[in-house]
This record gives sequence, C-alpha cells and structure tokens, in this order.
Amino acid sequence: MERDEQIETPDVLEFDGDHEDLSETVSLNRQEKLWTELLESLVRERKDTELTSFIKEVYSSDIADFIEKMEQEDGLYLFRHLPPDEQGDVLYEFEDHVRDRYLRDILNSSEVAAIILEQPSDRAADILAELDLESVSRVLARIPYEDRVKVTELLSYPENTAGALMTKDFVAVQQNDTVKKAISTLRRASERTDDIQFIYVVDEEGAYKGHISLKQLILSRPQSRVKRIMKEELLPIRAYTDREDVANFFTRYDFIAAPVIDDRGVLLGRITADDILEVLQEEASEDILRMGGVSGEERLTTPLLRTSLQRVVWLAVNLGTAFLSASVIQVFEKTIEKVVLLAALMPIVAALGGSAANQTVALVVRNIALGELTDANTRSTVTREITIGLINGIIIGLIAGIIIFLVTGNQAIALVILLALLFNLLVASFVGTMVPVFLRKVKVDPAIASSMMVATCTDVMGFSLFLGLASVLLHITGTT
Amino acid sequence: MERDEQIETPDVLEFDGDHEDLSETVSLNRQEKLWTELLESLVRERKDTELTSFIKEVYSSDIADFIEKMEQEDGLYLFRHLPPDEQGDVLYEFEDHVRDRYLRDILNSSEVAAIILEQPSDRAADILAELDLESVSRVLARIPYEDRVKVTELLSYPENTAGALMTKDFVAVQQNDTVKKAISTLRRASERTDDIQFIYVVDEEGAYKGHISLKQLILSRPQSRVKRIMKEELLPIRAYTDREDVANFFTRYDFIAAPVIDDRGVLLGRITADDILEVLQEEASEDILRMGGVSGEERLTTPLLRTSLQRVVWLAVNLGTAFLSASVIQVFEKTIEKVVLLAALMPIVAALGGSAANQTVALVVRNIALGELTDANTRSTVTREITIGLINGIIIGLIAGIIIFLVTGNQAIALVILLALLFNLLVASFVGTMVPVFLRKVKVDPAIASSMMVATCTDVMGFSLFLGLASVLLHITGTT
Repeated sequence: MERDEQIETPDVLEFDGDHEDLSETVSLNRQEKLWTELLESLVRERKDTELTSFIKEVYSSDIADFIEKMEQEDGLYLFRHLPPDEQGDVLYEFEDHVRDRYLRDILNSSEVAAIILEQPSDRAADILAELDLESVSRVLARIPYEDRVKVTELLSYPENTAGALMTKDFVAVQQNDTVKKAISTLRRASERTDDIQFIYVVDEEGAYKGHISLKQLILSRPQSRVKRIMKEELLPIRAYTDREDVANFFTRYDFIAAPVIDDRGVLLGRITADDILEVLQEEASEDILRMGGVSGEERLTTPLLRTSLQRVVWLAVNLGTAFLSASVIQVFEKTIEKVVLLAALMPIVAALGGSAANQTVALVVRNIALGELTDANTRSTVTREITIGLINGIIIGLIAGIIIFLVTGNQAIALVILLALLFNLLVASFVGTMVPVFLRKVKVDPAIASSMMVATCTDVMGFSLFLGLASVLLHITGTT
Repeated sequence: MERDEQIETPDVLEFDGDHEDLSETVSLNRQEKLWTELLESLVRERKDTELTSFIKEVYSSDIADFIEKMEQEDGLYLFRHLPPDEQGDVLYEFEDHVRDRYLRDILNSSEVAAIILEQPSDRAADILAELDLESVSRVLARIPYEDRVKVTELLSYPENTAGALMTKDFVAVQQNDTVKKAISTLRRASERTDDIQFIYVVDEEGAYKGHISLKQLILSRPQSRVKRIMKEELLPIRAYTDREDVANFFTRYDFIAAPVIDDRGVLLGRITADDILEVLQEEASEDILRMGGVSGEERLTTPLLRTSLQRVVWLAVNLGTAFLSASVIQVFEKTIEKVVLLAALMPIVAALGGSAANQTVALVVRNIALGELTDANTRSTVTREITIGLINGIIIGLIAGIIIFLVTGNQAIALVILLALLFNLLVASFVGTMVPVFLRKVKVDPAIASSMMVATCTDVMGFSLFLGLASVLLHITGTT
C-alpha cells in the first residue's frame, strides 16, 4: 500500500511487444528508478526500520536482482533484514552462483534452518540440495521432526523426476469425511500451503482416490460426504516419472496441479503448473544450447573460463571430424590438381548437405522431446524425410548444376555437382533422422551429439561424392 | 467408476524415464488395448447407448487421437456421440489439419455454435479463429448476446498477445462486498468457470484492486469485507503484452493465474498457467525449428509438399551463400594450384568457425528469448564472447597447427592454419553475438536468420583468411 501512496501509476506489467529484459520492463512500469533509489538510500544509510517496512512491498525476484547488483556487505545487510520467508524466496530467485555463495560461505546452518522452516517442502529440499552432506545434516538437526521427514523424502528422489518436483504440502481427506470435516482439515493446513487448488481424497491406506476443487467445497452442503462430490478425472503421476514426461503430460491434459503417488498408489505430494513452467523453460534451453554445441547449463553469467573450457572440448572433437573430411579430400589431390575449380565447388556440396541435415535434425530432435516421435511412427518419418530429401535434392541439384554450366560451360562438372548434391541431400535426410532416433534408443540426449555426427556424415559424403564422381566423369570425358 | 470395474490397475501415469510417446505410455497403463478395442467395437457395431456411457470415462485428448486414427465416418460417428462440451475439448486436442477439416467441411454452424456455448470463452474464440469471417458471424448469430460479446472481444486481440490468451470467465467482486456476498457470486459463476484459483476484487469502475484465494475465502468470517482479506501482490498484465513476455513473467513470479487489465486498469480477464505451458512449448519449438532452418510451425504431420517447399527455399538461399564462399576460393586458384594441400585444409578453418559461431548464436538467441540479454548487458556479453573466442581460437589454432606440422612438416602451412583459425574464431564470436542482437533490434526473430548469416560470415572469412595468409606466407617462404 505504502508504494501506492508514493507512486501514482498502478503496478502494471506492460510491454512494447519486443523482447526486452523482463525485470527491466516490469520495474520501469513500477518506476524502478523511484523505488530502487529509495531502497539504495535506505540500505546505504542503514535505516533498519524504514527498510524493513519498505521491502515488504517489493517482489522477492526484484530484491534478488537488486542484491546481486549491490556491494557484498550492502547486499548482505539487506538480505539479513528480510523476514525468513522472504529470505527463502530471494535465495530461490538468486543466480545459481550467488545462491551457492550465500548458502556455502555466508549463512550459518541455523540461519539456513530458519529459512527452510518458512519454505514449502519442495523449495526447502531445493535449497538443501545445494549444500554438502554434513551441512545438510547440521541444518536438518535444527528443524522439527515432521519437516525433516518431508524434506529428506524429497531429497531422496533423483533430480529430473516427479518426486523431486513435487511438494509435500498438500491437503488430503478421507473418502467418508464430510465437507465440514474437509474444511476444518483445510483450516489446519499450514500457512505455507497457500496456493492450494484441490483437496485430495484418499482411502484408509492413503491411496489416492480423487480430488475436490475448492469451488466445489465452498458450494457443497457441509454434511455431504466428500466421496460423493469428488472427481476422479485427475490422472496421478508416479514419483519416478521423468520430469520432461510430466511436463508433456501437463500440457497434454491442461492441468493446473496433479497428485503424485508411489507404486502402491499412496498419495505422496502434488506438482503445480508453475513448477512445470520452469521445467519446460529449462528443458527448452537445454535442447537449444546443446544443439548449438554448448553445455545445457551455460548462462550469460557462467564463469568465463568454465564456459571457454566446456566449449573448446566440443570444438576439439569438431577439429577431429574436420581432419577426417580433410583426409577424404587428400585422397583426391590428383583430381583437384587437374581441375582446381573443383576445390572451389566442393564446399558447396558439403554446405548444403549440412543445412539439409540440420533441417531434419531440428524437426526430429524437437519431436522426440515432445514425445511426438515414437517407435510407431519412426519408419513413416524416415520415409517422409527421405522423400523430402529426394525432392529438394533434385531441385537444388538442378539449380546448382545449371548455374555451374552457365558460368563454366563445363557439362561434366555441372553434372557432377547435380548428382553430388542430390545424393548428399538424400544422405542428409536419412542420417538426420536415424542419428537422433538411435541416440534416443541408447538413452543419449539427441540434442547433444546429433548435429555434429550428422554434419560429419554429410561433409565426408559430400566431399567423396563430389570428388569421386568428378574423378570418374572427368576421366571419362577426358577433361584436363 | 465404470472403468475401475473393468480394469484392475489404477489409472496411473508411469514412465521408464526415456522419452516415449506420452499418450502411448499413459494409455498402456490404462490398458489401452482393453478400452480401445472396446471403443472400436462399440463404434463398429454402432452401439449408441453403450458408446455414450463409455466415452464419459475416456480423456478427450485420447478420444481425439483415437478419432484421428479412425476411418472418417467412424470418427465422425464417434464425434457426434460426444456431448457438446466433450466435442469442444476433442476439437481443441485435434491436430490442426483435422480440426480445420471438422470446422470447415464437416460441422455446420449450428453444431459449432452448440460446441462453443459449452466452452470457456478463450477456447470458443480459438475455435472461431479457425473459421472464415462469414462462418464466424453465422455461428455468432446462434449464441446468446453475453457470450457473443465475450468471444468477439477476445477475437479482437492480435494473436500472441495476453488478450488472445486470456479467458473472460472469471469471478470478480466489489471491494466492499462481504465474504458471504463473494461466495454467492462464486455460486452464480457459470459451470464453465470451474478451474477457479482466485476471486478478483475491483472498484466501482471495475479497475483491478487485488485478489482472494479460495482458501482465504473459505477460512474467513462470512461478514468480513473482501477489502480486508484481499491480497495485492498479483501484478496485473496488460492486454497487449506479448505472449512470450507473459510467459517469462509467469516463470519469473511463479504464478498459477494472473489478471489481465486494459490501459485504464479495468479487469478484462485472467490467464492461467496451463495456457502458458502451451505458449512456452510452442515458442521453444518455434526457436528450435527456425534455428534448424525449417518453419516454426512444421510438424511431423505437415503435408509433405508444403514442408518440402518451405525447406527448399531456405536451401536455395543457402546455395547462394555457398556460391559466395566458392567465389572467394576461386580468387585463390593460383595458390591452390601451387599447394593442393590447401584445398584439403581450408574446409577445416570454415568448419570450426561455423561451430564456434553456432555456440555463440545458441547462447545469445536463447537468452534473448528468455529476456535475459538486454541493451544493458549487450556490451558485456560481446566482450565475454570475444574473450572466449580468443582463448579457444588460440587453443584450437595451436592443436591444429601442431598436428599439421607433425603430419606435413610444413611450418608455413601450420602457421597459416593457426592464424586463420585464431582469427576466424574471433570473427565467429563477434558476429555470433552481433547478428542476433541486431536482428532483435530490427524486430526480426533472431532464431530465423542468425545461423545462416553468421555461417556465411565464418565461411567467407575462413576461406579468405586461410588462403589469403597462405598466398602471402607461401610467397614469402617461397614454398612451391
């Protein structure tokens, strides 16, 4: 409210449509200047009371950005003035390396414990996951049994599974409970369980039976049994389901939240759509970056030397494959000596094979990620891609051939480039489909290696096809 | 329940972790065989009553897949036996081309009207958006005024804006209303408004003031005023905000649902996280496919010839750039004639320049999409990338140079490749950053053209650097 008094215009997210920095644009409309300057001065002058009351009005993600930009001790001063729950949110919003620093070097285990106590169990687990084992146990020793159990359970699930995504903070009632009873259960649910969409219904063994939307709960008669009003349409998710599959599942069935169960059907927790939003964004980043040949975790903020090292490894492998194609060319030295023009033209065949391959790889890798490409439709996809490769091979081959003929007047070379392009585009479409499909089969993320493996094939094929055909045809036609 | 009797195992989403087709895996656990066979036979034998009761138990997205696999008239028979609301959901789940067929050729306007009436306003608008104008007006003529207004408003927002994403089905109460009043408002809210998370609070002018979670509503005393219990932390979104920014906003602030307002702050509708899930997936697909040189809308099901045409255009442009680099090589024919080895080595420089460029482009394009790369940090990013280019250029240059020297014993050529690689990786990192940044400035999606433009630069630079340096140095050292 305070902020409303200072600032006339309402807090509004507004964009001119192009992709400018979000925080920037948001805060601009919230008159960042105004409040950041205020916040800065409050911190600089160490105005404890004003600060404490003011930061209540600021988004934790904005505070996080703010602290990251500040001097270490100023940032720390601000952080220490946040209420523990805010501290948790800010930690969560920090860049990874900042969070690491705070958790490992700055905060002591009792501070971490205080923060964790105020966080929903999944976030608490995320925070602990950053610490080394002994610090974890030191922190856990400081929080009550009930929370300890929840958090340790969550920590026990492998990253990238539904179990690691879910929160233990849900509200469950018995099939035979009344709506009245359900409401009082809801009332007793912890403050942390605020973003509740559904109340889950379980049987005596705690097995998931169905759900009730809070709307239904409000609109039903207090004495009616939950069994009567519960819906069963929510498909529960098993704890060990891969998180990418969970994401596709949410998008497929348009869920806002879904229950998580163990193998015996016992309700373990719930996953909400906002967790999935992050999964989708991370998975997409991973695929895009990996296809580009950088680590899926690379960010603009990743330390420069680590980045450089990770990338150079990839380039080194690439150097190897490049030498491979070079050796192919070597084989045809004599041919090139005869007709140097070939040296100028051969990269064309390789380049277009590469581009055609990338087109196929992009389509295939993406559809694997979306779960659209299955064993069922692999064959049809291969056929489809090969047909496209054939059609486009003919078209591009003809264009190139004709141009070459018009420029050089050399039919033989024109014919060579036509055939070489045609075949290489066929190869491209075939390998472009098979490599990612194969990688998936052997449980390697197709986004990682596909592009390079395929590119190598098309380079080698491109050069050998072109120069091979050339040496044959030029021999026949006796060109020198 | 019916289904529970037929099938022992509970409906459970379970995965072996690798990315198999989702529907497949889900349904397997729901014993697809069992129910698909049943469904098929019911359809084949035209058992109306059994069919009607059975399909109640099946997910609309599964029915959609099922119909797509069936014979046209069988599918239509099944579709016509669905209740109108189910029909809407199924339409929504259809592949685009199937939905088109149903909406344009199969269903008449009164059928469409019946379906739309049962859909939330945003889906209704999505369905109408597929039709030509006159069919739209024919359909609208058949639905009551209130819905007509809602839908037409939604249709008025440009695609890719918050306005086009939002639904008009929300529950809003006055600041001075009591909780009791709010609950009765909620009660009157249409059946379609079932996935409600918040009740929104507005002032006399309908301007958005805050929100109340249903949990708070349940737990508050009936006579207390909503003004007292409402929260203000939800940042409203403007109707014309770009949908990609809305998505980044949801992920940044972990929202489940957010209110949408107009320029005067009047509450227009709400966007829920499940809409955003689809946005994120679509945007990611678009970027991945475009970076691969295919249309952002290409799917495994896109008609083959259209795909082929769209791709060949891209390849043709590529052919042009390839000829460009070829002409560069032409210039150095004499040099190559002298030392044919150069012909074998020059693709190495181009290839590695290309890979290094892709690494930068992937990082930059992705961070632009995430709104992480801003005018504020562009300079620092360029410096960062160039430094990496320099470091990796030296490393890769040295490795290549040493290998060449060991293999050929030719210092001059070894030195040439070292320098050429070093410079080309520098160029790669520079253009790899600048091109996408520039494209964003001129409002072109960087995902579309970056890769090719950058690749062209690195090819041309690679060949000219390598061959240029070679002709100089070889002349100096007088190698022949």
